[in-house]
Amino acid sequence: MSETDRMLTANAEWAERFPGSRPVAPARHVAVVACMDSRMPLFPLLGLEVGDAHVIRNAGGVITEDTLRSLTISQHLLGTRETVLVHHTDCGLQKTDDRGLADLVQEATGHRPPWTGRTFTDVDTDVRESLAVVRTTPYLASHEVRGFVYDVDTGLLREVV
Amino acid sequence: MSETDRMLTANAEWAERFPGSRPVAPARHVAVVACMDSRMPLFPLLGLEVGDAHVIRNAGGVITEDTLRSLTISQHLLGTRETVLVHHTDCGLQKTDDRGLADLVQEATGHRPPWTGRTFTDVDTDVRESLAVVRTTPYLASHEVRGFVYDVDTGLLREVV
Repeated sequence: MSETDRMLTANAEWAERFPGSRPVAPARHVAVVACMDSRMPLFPLLGLEVGDAHVIRNAGGVITEDTLRSLTISQHLLGTRETVLVHHTDCGLQKTDDRGLADLVQEATGHRPPWTGRTFTDVDTDVRESLAVVRTTPYLASHEVRGFVYDVDTGLLREVV
Repeated sequence: MSETDRMLTANAEWAERFPGSRPVAPARHVAVVACMDSRMPLFPLLGLEVGDAHVIRNAGGVITEDTLRSLTISQHLLGTRETVLVHHTDCGLQKTDDRGLADLVQEATGHRPPWTGRTFTDVDTDVRESLAVVRTTPYLASHEVRGFVYDVDTGLLREVV
Protein backbone atom coordinates (compact mmCIF):
# COMPACT_ATOMS: atom_id res chain seq x y z
CA MET A 1 0.00 0.00 0.00
CA SER A 2 1.37 3.44 -0.92
CA GLU A 3 1.65 6.18 1.69
CA THR A 4 -1.10 8.04 -0.17
CA ASP A 5 -3.44 5.05 0.18
CA ARG A 6 -2.61 4.86 3.91
CA MET A 7 -3.65 8.52 4.18
CA LEU A 8 -6.98 7.76 2.47
CA THR A 9 -7.70 5.05 5.04
CA ALA A 10 -6.90 7.53 7.82
CA ASN A 11 -9.12 10.14 6.15
CA ALA A 12 -12.11 7.78 6.23
CA GLU A 13 -11.58 7.46 10.01
CA TRP A 14 -11.31 11.26 10.32
CA ALA A 15 -14.65 11.66 8.52
CA GLU A 16 -16.27 9.30 11.06
CA ARG A 17 -15.42 11.78 13.85
CA PHE A 18 -15.72 14.92 11.67
CA PRO A 19 -16.65 17.93 13.84
CA GLY A 20 -18.94 19.49 11.20
CA SER A 21 -19.01 22.44 8.81
CA ARG A 22 -17.44 25.81 9.59
CA PRO A 23 -17.56 29.15 7.70
CA VAL A 24 -14.85 29.87 5.10
CA ALA A 25 -13.58 32.97 6.97
CA PRO A 26 -11.23 32.03 9.85
CA ALA A 27 -13.00 32.44 13.22
CA ARG A 28 -9.95 33.86 15.00
CA HIS A 29 -8.91 36.21 12.13
CA VAL A 30 -5.35 34.88 12.12
CA ALA A 31 -3.02 33.65 9.37
CA VAL A 32 -0.02 31.50 10.28
CA VAL A 33 3.01 31.43 7.94
CA ALA A 34 5.28 28.48 8.77
CA CYS A 35 7.96 26.20 7.40
CA MET A 36 6.81 22.96 5.72
CA ASP A 37 8.86 20.96 8.27
CA SER A 38 7.28 17.60 9.11
CA ARG A 39 7.74 18.08 12.86
CA MET A 40 5.25 20.96 13.19
CA PRO A 41 1.57 19.88 13.40
CA LEU A 42 0.39 23.49 13.62
CA PHE A 43 -3.21 22.96 14.74
CA PRO A 44 -2.38 21.17 18.04
CA LEU A 45 0.92 23.05 18.42
CA LEU A 46 -0.94 26.40 18.48
CA GLY A 47 -4.23 25.22 19.98
CA LEU A 48 -6.18 25.75 16.74
CA GLU A 49 -9.57 24.17 16.08
CA VAL A 50 -11.11 23.48 12.66
CA GLY A 51 -12.02 26.84 11.12
CA ASP A 52 -9.80 29.01 13.33
CA ALA A 53 -6.87 30.24 11.15
CA HIS A 54 -5.32 30.13 7.71
CA VAL A 55 -2.10 28.12 7.49
CA ILE A 56 0.44 29.06 4.79
CA ARG A 57 3.59 26.90 4.58
CA ASN A 58 6.66 26.64 2.37
CA ALA A 59 10.32 25.65 2.64
CA GLY A 60 11.64 27.89 5.42
CA GLY A 61 8.39 29.69 6.16
CA VAL A 62 9.83 32.65 4.26
CA ILE A 63 7.80 35.50 2.75
CA THR A 64 7.85 35.06 -1.02
CA GLU A 65 5.62 36.59 -3.68
CA ASP A 66 3.36 33.55 -3.31
CA THR A 67 3.19 34.01 0.48
CA LEU A 68 2.14 37.64 -0.08
CA ARG A 69 -0.51 36.50 -2.58
CA SER A 70 -1.87 34.10 0.06
CA LEU A 71 -1.73 36.70 2.87
CA THR A 72 -3.49 39.26 0.67
CA ILE A 73 -6.34 36.83 -0.04
CA SER A 74 -6.43 35.87 3.65
CA GLN A 75 -6.75 39.50 4.75
CA HIS A 76 -8.72 41.25 2.01
CA LEU A 77 -11.11 38.44 1.05
CA LEU A 78 -11.40 36.49 4.30
CA GLY A 79 -10.80 39.03 7.05
CA THR A 80 -7.66 37.92 8.91
CA ARG A 81 -5.82 40.69 10.79
CA GLU A 82 -2.99 39.03 12.82
CA THR A 83 -0.11 37.19 11.16
CA VAL A 84 2.09 34.70 13.03
CA LEU A 85 5.42 33.51 11.58
CA VAL A 86 6.80 30.12 12.67
CA HIS A 87 10.35 29.17 11.68
CA HIS A 88 12.22 26.45 13.60
CA THR A 89 15.52 25.00 14.78
CA ASP A 90 17.37 22.33 12.73
CA CYS A 91 15.92 23.49 9.36
CA GLY A 92 16.89 21.66 6.17
CA LEU A 93 17.54 25.04 4.53
CA GLN A 94 20.46 25.63 6.94
CA LYS A 95 22.19 22.46 5.70
CA THR A 96 23.18 23.80 2.24
CA ASP A 97 23.42 27.09 0.34
CA ASP A 98 21.61 28.32 -2.79
CA ARG A 99 24.41 27.28 -5.14
CA GLY A 100 24.89 23.88 -3.46
CA LEU A 101 21.18 23.19 -3.81
CA ALA A 102 21.13 24.15 -7.51
CA ASP A 103 24.22 21.98 -8.14
CA LEU A 104 22.59 19.03 -6.37
CA VAL A 105 19.43 19.32 -8.50
CA GLN A 106 21.42 19.68 -11.72
CA GLU A 107 23.56 16.63 -10.95
CA ALA A 108 20.48 14.52 -10.18
CA THR A 109 18.23 15.60 -13.06
CA GLY A 110 20.30 17.48 -15.64
CA HIS A 111 18.15 20.59 -15.06
CA ARG A 112 18.98 23.70 -13.03
CA PRO A 113 16.03 25.28 -11.16
CA PRO A 114 15.00 28.80 -12.31
CA TRP A 115 14.77 30.24 -8.76
CA THR A 116 17.01 30.67 -5.69
CA GLY A 117 16.54 28.26 -2.79
CA ARG A 118 16.18 30.84 0.00
CA THR A 119 18.67 28.95 2.18
CA PHE A 120 19.85 30.74 5.32
CA THR A 121 22.37 30.47 8.15
CA ASP A 122 20.85 32.29 11.16
CA VAL A 123 17.19 31.55 11.97
CA ASP A 124 16.60 34.73 13.99
CA THR A 125 17.85 36.86 11.09
CA ASP A 126 15.59 34.89 8.75
CA VAL A 127 12.55 35.60 10.96
CA ARG A 128 13.43 39.32 11.18
CA GLU A 129 13.68 39.55 7.37
CA SER A 130 10.23 37.97 7.04
CA LEU A 131 8.77 40.31 9.69
CA ALA A 132 10.16 43.31 7.81
CA VAL A 133 8.55 42.24 4.52
CA VAL A 134 5.09 41.81 6.07
CA ARG A 135 5.42 45.18 7.84
CA THR A 136 6.38 47.06 4.69
CA THR A 137 4.22 45.48 1.97
CA PRO A 138 1.88 48.36 1.06
CA TYR A 139 -1.03 46.35 -0.33
CA LEU A 140 -1.66 44.26 2.81
CA ALA A 141 -4.71 45.22 4.91
CA SER A 142 -2.90 44.60 8.22
CA HIS A 143 0.78 44.81 9.18
CA GLU A 144 0.26 43.28 12.63
CA VAL A 145 2.78 40.42 12.71
CA ARG A 146 4.90 38.56 15.26
CA GLY A 147 7.64 36.00 14.59
CA PHE A 148 8.70 32.85 16.43
CA VAL A 149 11.26 30.04 16.34
CA TYR A 150 9.90 26.59 17.18
CA ASP A 151 12.33 24.31 19.02
CA VAL A 152 11.92 20.86 17.42
CA ASP A 153 13.51 19.24 20.50
CA THR A 154 11.21 20.76 23.15
CA GLY A 155 8.03 21.76 21.32
CA LEU A 156 8.26 25.36 22.55
CA LEU A 157 7.99 28.63 20.60
CA ARG A 158 10.44 31.48 21.27
CA GLU A 159 9.58 34.99 20.06
CA VAL A 160 12.05 36.91 17.89
CA VAL A 161 11.97 40.64 18.66
CA MET B 1 -5.34 38.99 25.07
CA SER B 2 -4.44 38.86 21.36
CA GLU B 3 -5.03 35.67 19.37
CA THR B 4 -1.25 35.31 19.13
CA ASP B 5 -0.92 35.34 22.93
CA ARG B 6 -3.69 32.72 23.17
CA MET B 7 -1.63 30.54 20.80
CA LEU B 8 1.44 30.93 23.03
CA THR B 9 -0.56 29.69 26.03
CA ALA B 10 -1.71 26.70 23.96
CA ASN B 11 1.88 26.07 22.83
CA ALA B 12 3.07 25.81 26.46
CA GLU B 13 0.44 23.09 26.97
CA TRP B 14 1.59 21.34 23.76
CA ALA B 15 5.18 21.31 25.04
CA GLU B 16 3.98 19.57 28.25
CA ARG B 17 2.80 16.60 26.16
CA PHE B 18 5.49 16.92 23.44
CA PRO B 19 6.13 13.51 21.84
CA GLY B 20 9.90 14.08 21.46
CA SER B 21 12.47 14.77 18.74
CA ARG B 22 12.23 13.35 15.23
CA PRO B 23 14.71 13.44 12.29
CA VAL B 24 14.49 16.33 9.82
CA ALA B 25 13.76 14.00 6.84
CA PRO B 26 10.06 12.99 6.72
CA ALA B 27 9.62 9.36 7.88
CA ARG B 28 6.95 8.53 5.26
CA HIS B 29 8.75 10.29 2.36
CA VAL B 30 5.64 12.28 1.46
CA ALA B 31 4.99 15.96 0.72
CA VAL B 32 1.45 17.32 0.94
CA VAL B 33 0.54 20.46 -1.05
CA ALA B 34 -2.73 21.94 0.20
CA CYS B 35 -4.83 25.07 0.35
CA MET B 36 -4.35 27.35 3.39
CA ASP B 37 -8.06 26.94 4.26
CA SER B 38 -8.72 27.05 8.01
CA ARG B 39 -10.96 23.99 7.91
CA MET B 40 -8.20 21.50 7.01
CA PRO B 41 -6.07 20.31 9.97
CA LEU B 42 -3.90 18.13 7.74
CA PHE B 43 -2.14 16.01 10.36
CA PRO B 44 -5.30 14.42 11.83
CA LEU B 45 -7.15 14.64 8.51
CA LEU B 46 -4.51 12.42 6.82
CA GLY B 47 -3.43 10.39 9.86
CA LEU B 48 0.01 12.01 10.03
CA GLU B 49 2.23 11.87 13.12
CA VAL B 50 4.98 14.35 14.04
CA GLY B 51 7.85 13.82 11.58
CA ASP B 52 5.86 12.01 8.89
CA ALA B 53 5.44 14.42 5.94
CA HIS B 54 6.20 17.90 4.64
CA VAL B 55 3.19 20.20 4.45
CA ILE B 56 3.22 23.00 1.86
CA ARG B 57 0.20 25.34 1.82
CA ASN B 58 -0.89 28.47 -0.03
CA ALA B 59 -4.09 30.12 -1.23
CA GLY B 60 -5.72 27.44 -3.37
CA GLY B 61 -3.05 24.78 -2.90
CA VAL B 62 -1.86 25.66 -6.41
CA ILE B 63 1.58 24.88 -7.82
CA THR B 64 3.49 28.16 -8.04
CA GLU B 65 7.22 28.79 -8.44
CA ASP B 66 7.44 28.87 -4.64
CA THR B 67 5.62 25.52 -4.36
CA LEU B 68 8.14 24.03 -6.81
CA ARG B 69 11.02 25.49 -4.77
CA SER B 70 9.57 23.81 -1.66
CA LEU B 71 8.93 20.47 -3.44
CA THR B 72 12.46 20.49 -4.85
CA ILE B 73 13.97 20.95 -1.39
CA SER B 74 11.58 18.34 0.00
CA GLN B 75 12.62 15.78 -2.63
CA HIS B 76 16.30 16.48 -3.35
CA LEU B 77 17.45 17.51 0.13
CA LEU B 78 15.05 15.57 2.36
CA GLY B 79 14.09 12.47 0.37
CA THR B 80 10.32 12.69 -0.22
CA ARG B 81 9.02 10.72 -3.22
CA GLU B 82 5.20 10.90 -3.16
CA THR B 83 3.29 14.18 -3.52
CA VAL B 84 -0.34 14.57 -2.44
CA LEU B 85 -2.43 17.59 -3.55
CA VAL B 86 -5.38 18.66 -1.40
CA HIS B 87 -7.78 21.28 -2.77
CA HIS B 88 -11.30 21.61 -1.32
CA THR B 89 -14.94 22.57 -1.81
CA ASP B 90 -16.20 26.11 -0.98
CA CYS B 91 -12.80 27.77 -1.61
CA GLY B 92 -12.42 31.54 -1.15
CA LEU B 93 -10.63 31.70 -4.51
CA GLN B 94 -13.86 30.65 -6.25
CA LYS B 95 -15.69 33.69 -4.84
CA THR B 96 -13.93 36.33 -6.99
CA ASP B 97 -11.73 36.59 -10.08
CA ASP B 98 -8.17 37.90 -10.54
CA ARG B 99 -9.31 41.36 -11.61
CA GLY B 100 -11.94 41.62 -8.86
CA LEU B 101 -9.32 40.73 -6.24
CA ALA B 102 -6.83 43.31 -7.57
CA ASP B 103 -9.58 45.97 -7.64
CA LEU B 104 -10.57 45.14 -4.04
CA VAL B 105 -6.97 45.48 -2.83
CA GLN B 106 -6.45 48.74 -4.71
CA GLU B 107 -9.66 50.26 -3.31
CA ALA B 108 -8.68 49.31 0.25
CA THR B 109 -5.01 50.30 0.20
CA GLY B 110 -4.32 52.42 -2.89
CA HIS B 111 -1.87 49.78 -4.11
CA ARG B 112 -2.36 47.15 -6.81
CA PRO B 113 -0.63 43.79 -6.18
CA PRO B 114 2.16 42.82 -8.65
CA TRP B 115 0.90 39.24 -9.15
CA THR B 116 -2.27 37.45 -10.30
CA GLY B 117 -4.52 35.91 -7.64
CA ARG B 118 -4.80 32.41 -9.13
CA THR B 119 -8.58 32.42 -8.66
CA PHE B 120 -10.49 29.58 -10.32
CA THR B 121 -14.01 28.39 -11.08
CA ASP B 122 -13.87 24.57 -11.28
CA VAL B 123 -11.98 22.77 -8.51
CA ASP B 124 -11.41 19.54 -10.46
CA THR B 125 -9.84 21.51 -13.34
CA ASP B 126 -7.67 23.34 -10.81
CA VAL B 127 -6.42 20.04 -9.35
CA ARG B 128 -5.69 18.65 -12.84
CA GLU B 129 -3.65 21.73 -13.73
CA SER B 130 -1.59 21.31 -10.56
CA LEU B 131 -1.09 17.58 -11.25
CA ALA B 132 0.16 18.41 -14.76
CA VAL B 133 2.74 20.90 -13.46
CA VAL B 134 4.21 18.43 -10.96
CA ARG B 135 4.32 15.70 -13.61
CA THR B 136 6.15 17.86 -16.16
CA THR B 137 8.61 19.88 -14.07
CA PRO B 138 11.96 18.47 -15.24
CA TYR B 139 14.07 19.29 -12.18
CA LEU B 140 11.92 17.38 -9.65
CA ALA B 141 13.33 14.05 -8.41
CA SER B 142 9.91 12.34 -8.42
CA HIS B 143 6.79 12.93 -10.52
CA GLU B 144 4.63 10.56 -8.48
CA VAL B 145 1.61 12.69 -7.55
CA ARG B 146 -2.11 12.25 -6.83
CA GLY B 147 -4.72 14.96 -6.38
CA PHE B 148 -7.79 15.21 -4.15
CA VAL B 149 -10.71 17.49 -3.30
CA TYR B 150 -11.57 17.70 0.41
CA ASP B 151 -15.27 18.14 1.17
CA VAL B 152 -15.45 20.74 3.97
CA ASP B 153 -18.97 19.54 4.85
CA THR B 154 -18.18 15.83 5.30
CA GLY B 155 -14.43 15.63 6.00
CA LEU B 156 -13.88 13.20 3.10
CA LEU B 157 -11.28 13.30 0.31
CA ARG B 158 -12.30 12.54 -3.29
CA GLU B 159 -9.60 11.70 -5.84
CA VAL B 160 -9.42 13.65 -9.11
CA VAL B 161 -8.33 11.43 -11.99
